[in-house]
Amino acid sequence: MSHIPSRNTQLCISLAGRPGTFGVRFHNHLYDQLGLDYYYKAMTTDDLPAAVAGIRALGIRGCGVSMPFKEACLALVDEVDASAAAIESVNTLVNSDGYLKAYNTDYLAVQQLLAKHEVDPSTAFALRGSGGMAKAVACALSDAGFREGLIVARNEQAGRQLADMLGYRWQAELGDLAPPMLINVTPIGMAGGPEAEQLAFPETAIAVAERVFDVVAMPARTPLICRAEALGKPVITGLEVIALQALEQFVLYTGVRPTAAQIDAAVAYARGA
Amino acid sequence: MSHIPSRNTQLCISLAGRPGTFGVRFHNHLYDQLGLDYYYKAMTTDDLPAAVAGIRALGIRGCGVSMPFKEACLALVDEVDASAAAIESVNTLVNSDGYLKAYNTDYLAVQQLLAKHEVDPSTAFALRGSGGMAKAVACALSDAGFREGLIVARNEQAGRQLADMLGYRWQAELGDLAPPMLINVTPIGMAGGPEAEQLAFPETAIAVAERVFDVVAMPARTPLICRAEALGKPVITGLEVIALQALEQFVLYTGVRPTAAQIDAAVAYARGA
Repeated sequence: MSHIPSRNTQLCISLAGRPGTFGVRFHNHLYDQLGLDYYYKAMTTDDLPAAVAGIRALGIRGCGVSMPFKEACLALVDEVDASAAAIESVNTLVNSDGYLKAYNTDYLAVQQLLAKHEVDPSTAFALRGSGGMAKAVACALSDAGFREGLIVARNEQAGRQLADMLGYRWQAELGDLAPPMLINVTPIGMAGGPEAEQLAFPETAIAVAERVFDVVAMPARTPLICRAEALGKPVITGLEVIALQALEQFVLYTGVRPTAAQIDAAVAYARGA
Repeated sequence: MSHIPSRNTQLCISLAGRPGTFGVRFHNHLYDQLGLDYYYKAMTTDDLPAAVAGIRALGIRGCGVSMPFKEACLALVDEVDASAAAIESVNTLVNSDGYLKAYNTDYLAVQQLLAKHEVDPSTAFALRGSGGMAKAVACALSDAGFREGLIVARNEQAGRQLADMLGYRWQAELGDLAPPMLINVTPIGMAGGPEAEQLAFPETAIAVAERVFDVVAMPARTPLICRAEALGKPVITGLEVIALQALEQFVLYTGVRPTAAQIDAAVAYARGA
């Protein structure tokens, strides 16, 4: 992959507490493949208001926003898209001549994946987690018409708040329940984390589930996904979420929608880091 | 030339009212040749304080500063190097973990060129111009020990102020004077400008001068330089200034000093735009 810098190159960046490599590789690969004069750079900051003011003042076209900046961005932009407003969490900034609009493409990606995998909205689910991403997934489910939901979270305050907001129930643990769809939105199963080898749900619940959805993207084959696949269950993986949310960012930044083959190649390249 | 973006790529930028191509090509070419994980992007802004705050907050390593931002930067940094303090004009910002230091590599480049060309400080000169770059050149001359100086400037206030600051004389026109060194620091002779075909000094003065120095870099062979060379006079060109000041920026940003051959190749590449 190569990029020949010019005076007119459009710059996109990301802001994260711990910058990753997926976005850098995904976006720059597609810029290259599509011949777009764009450049993507992963960054961090210890002064978010100044960083966002800098995005505006320097004409940086777009910015991916990750932890711990997703909520604080809301107050710093000119307009909040519906995708970010409902969940009060931003993962994308688009700068149009100094006018900043905030989106949440995680929410958009989850909605698209539920439709793509033809998950019936009457399906009851248990969603484990209560952080910003859990909020995005739960809101996407609610807005897609899923009414039978259980939020499983050890953090009672955050879990209850999320459940109450959307009319779902809350429990600290799944217990003996066995809902047809299990959704993990915690770091359990994430490579390099303290719970990398653990299952986000009990084996008994996985055994009777009809579908398993894990938001963890690294690895795409978490212990939860591996167990579900071994049992022949349909799955939705975090790799699908990260790829689709990055794609929606790409479209917002460039106005260009790549083909499915181009997207697959960019995801494969980005994962090869 | 190619650049493979990574999570750790260091970003350098420039801020100019009208971004050029020399810096983008010069710096990126050298990054590529030397295998440095850096990327250089030309930018503009309509909000300099926010742009400089953004450089700090986003961890942008360095910034070249051009018109009309050279003076206003002074108040926005943590430290002003002697090269910028004396002339109250900045062309380079270096960001070390959020600590911004301002330099003027135009000043440094002119000082180095006077030494390289072995110009005797007892040489009397006429310098035409009174803007920021004229100040940089005049201060470099003064600090190098040149005592016999005449500032030629139609802008009486700016011309007198510059002359008074350094103990030089001022005149609106050169008149019948014929000093041994003629220095042009106006846009006269600049490609695309209204005076592209004009000589910055009278033919009679050029004919008797011992040396001619033109700060205009585009083209490197201005009418003034062409006339002086036709008469066999030694010259210093704007291309030497722009290349050397860019090199000093490069060293400040990267800590690496390229070889003479690498510099020549980068200048040739940058001029090919």
